[in-house]
Amino acid sequence: MPHVSRRGFLQTSALAAVGTLLTPSLQAKNLEMVLDKNSIGKSKWELDTPALVVDLDKMEQNIKTVHTRLQGTGVGVRPHVKTHKCPAIAKMQIDAGAIGVCAAKLGEAEVMLENGIKNVMMTTVNVTAPKIVKAMALRKKYKGFIQAADNPQNIQDLQDAAKAAGIKAEVVLDINVIKRSGVPPGQPALALAQMIDKMPNLKFCGILAYDGAVQHVAGFQKRKTQALKTFEPVVESYEMMKAAGLNLEIFSGGGTGTYDIMIEVSGFTDVQVGSYVFMDRQYNEIGGAKNDKVFDDFATSLTVMSTIVNNYYPGRLTTDSGAKAFTLNKPNPLVIGEPDFNYNAGSDEYGTITFEKSNKSYKVGDKLEIIAPHCDPIVNLYDVMYGTRGDKVVSVIPVLARGKSQ
Amino acid sequence: MPHVSRRGFLQTSALAAVGTLLTPSLQAKNLEMVLDKNSIGKSKWELDTPALVVDLDKMEQNIKTVHTRLQGTGVGVRPHVKTHKCPAIAKMQIDAGAIGVCAAKLGEAEVMLENGIKNVMMTTVNVTAPKIVKAMALRKKYKGFIQAADNPQNIQDLQDAAKAAGIKAEVVLDINVIKRSGVPPGQPALALAQMIDKMPNLKFCGILAYDGAVQHVAGFQKRKTQALKTFEPVVESYEMMKAAGLNLEIFSGGGTGTYDIMIEVSGFTDVQVGSYVFMDRQYNEIGGAKNDKVFDDFATSLTVMSTIVNNYYPGRLTTDSGAKAFTLNKPNPLVIGEPDFNYNAGSDEYGTITFEKSNKSYKVGDKLEIIAPHCDPIVNLYDVMYGTRGDKVVSVIPVLARGKSQ
Repeated sequence: MPHVSRRGFLQTSALAAVGTLLTPSLQAKNLEMVLDKNSIGKSKWELDTPALVVDLDKMEQNIKTVHTRLQGTGVGVRPHVKTHKCPAIAKMQIDAGAIGVCAAKLGEAEVMLENGIKNVMMTTVNVTAPKIVKAMALRKKYKGFIQAADNPQNIQDLQDAAKAAGIKAEVVLDINVIKRSGVPPGQPALALAQMIDKMPNLKFCGILAYDGAVQHVAGFQKRKTQALKTFEPVVESYEMMKAAGLNLEIFSGGGTGTYDIMIEVSGFTDVQVGSYVFMDRQYNEIGGAKNDKVFDDFATSLTVMSTIVNNYYPGRLTTDSGAKAFTLNKPNPLVIGEPDFNYNAGSDEYGTITFEKSNKSYKVGDKLEIIAPHCDPIVNLYDVMYGTRGDKVVSVIPVLARGKSQ
Repeated sequence: MPHVSRRGFLQTSALAAVGTLLTPSLQAKNLEMVLDKNSIGKSKWELDTPALVVDLDKMEQNIKTVHTRLQGTGVGVRPHVKTHKCPAIAKMQIDAGAIGVCAAKLGEAEVMLENGIKNVMMTTVNVTAPKIVKAMALRKKYKGFIQAADNPQNIQDLQDAAKAAGIKAEVVLDINVIKRSGVPPGQPALALAQMIDKMPNLKFCGILAYDGAVQHVAGFQKRKTQALKTFEPVVESYEMMKAAGLNLEIFSGGGTGTYDIMIEVSGFTDVQVGSYVFMDRQYNEIGGAKNDKVFDDFATSLTVMSTIVNNYYPGRLTTDSGAKAFTLNKPNPLVIGEPDFNYNAGSDEYGTITFEKSNKSYKVGDKLEIIAPHCDPIVNLYDVMYGTRGDKVVSVIPVLARGKSQ
């Protein structure tokens, strides 16, 4: 941001009393608007398509698995809601023992807090005046909201805004791993931690660091070696802060690909697992500690139901689900039961399947169930996901933080 | 679909009276929920980001240009709303002389009809019972709704549903060009046209055909040659139907890349231009009739405002706009004023810029204005777009059909 003076923040805050800047809870309106309650009790094969479906038994098992595996390690679970964007799923994660959730965007944090999730830690920084003022208003209303920072100007701005709001706001320092977000590790990180710690209206709560590049390294041992190696500078920064007597109640990071690797990091407090609830083709293919070919710690719970709309040409089928239903992520969507199908979601409106052999012959109107390439951005396309047990739809879950990219 | 008998349609219709299947107009609720009216009067550089922005002067000029160019050719304009998903923009297109609009999905058609757009032609087929019943309910309510068909079973199902709804429904036949949608041209197409024409509750209105593969062929002459060549079987089908005495009041197709090429097709009635309102990098690069390097018939009106959140590393900048703001379409997003910037939107939450030289130095909090790779799926990520004149925000346009992929 261009520097925003304390006076600037005071004026902004005076103009709009804290709280009124917050969007009113979207839940009631969204529920009324988009919930297709008539679908409850139907088979998922009867849903209008494209439809996003989550197998609740599998998702619940995934949520349990991460806690079972981490029990006794001293490492907690702070799931990332950027993946599912649903307060309803965040509640399931909290009920299963998560210590709170992470949010990538202020809009996501707001939706979670306004819909009953008490502890939300942002993993990205808010650097513009409107976002900082809104973040402080959220913190004033919800004591469990923790913000991230990574540069001196921003820390000063957070201090000014917290003071203007009359609060002491919890802040974690984001430490850089892949030259994308965060302050460089080592002395620069220590200096900023001390700067936050000295601010009268900020409380330094610790650090976070995310190694996005290592999550999808195929092969457990290779991934483990790389993850621990790239994390070394972060651990050094942690040790420097510890020696300086700073509060380090939070040392957060990792993801679905490293959740059982980060337990070897000294002082580490919690993993920011996201995709583990759903899984997707990208994660299925990296291998796990028990199975080096398939990462089967977690089950694939998220699928898209599609309808075949054209079958005139041999070896080709067209569906109603293209890039607006699947995104362009790779590998391609995978049709359950048809391993030979090559699904191309490159067209906006249509999916095109080419194949040499199929296990059955398909008519126009037949449905397919399809595994997603990469769960996060696909969820962000849908207003609701249908919760199923077996083939039966038992709930319609509003994706309340869909599109909250601000 | 598995064949749905007339009895099936009658029962479905009896259970849910025609009309009650329709979602109530979303406009009022959406407007209340998402319209950020406080932004009106601000500079676009003050918007919270990522924000989708449309330059209204440029968009209005684009809308005028297509009519000016086609004036006197006998070819009309039937813009595709899959691109903008906004009834407000569809109204501008109609006011400028469009004969109606196209919709790719039934949900889009519904939003347009329920929000004042009188003539909507679907370019894709509805093949499942719920969609067919809903389509006929829409047709009963709105006389200007035209449906597409491309296979015999579907035509029989449409007939049964139209009869059950007590209407005579307008139908166009989709003819295949790229083995994706539509009936094969020639005799199969003629047979289906005659089948529709004989159905007591359907009115055969003509044909449509879309050559998606040719729209982005670079170089006007090359594109023109290929477009006219691939369209030959469609033209032959048209001639066969004409000779058979069928009604051909509609012969629709083409797109932004071929809008001034299709005028050479005998009998052709209207172009389904979509991207021309916004333009994007994909279309900018194909060249036009006047300029073979840049397709400058239309101006780039659509951009995304982003904020820089990290500048610690030389030759690198991080923004708050990744794949959830831009999609993964290629070529990469283009930062206005910084031709050397390589913008990677491959991360879900962050954009990463690498560069060797920049025209200014950037601070955290600075804003960038960025041209989109491919407009349609990007618009589908946002609840609103901000209408600007110069730098000033003058309107907030709800993207009412966002996410209507069913």
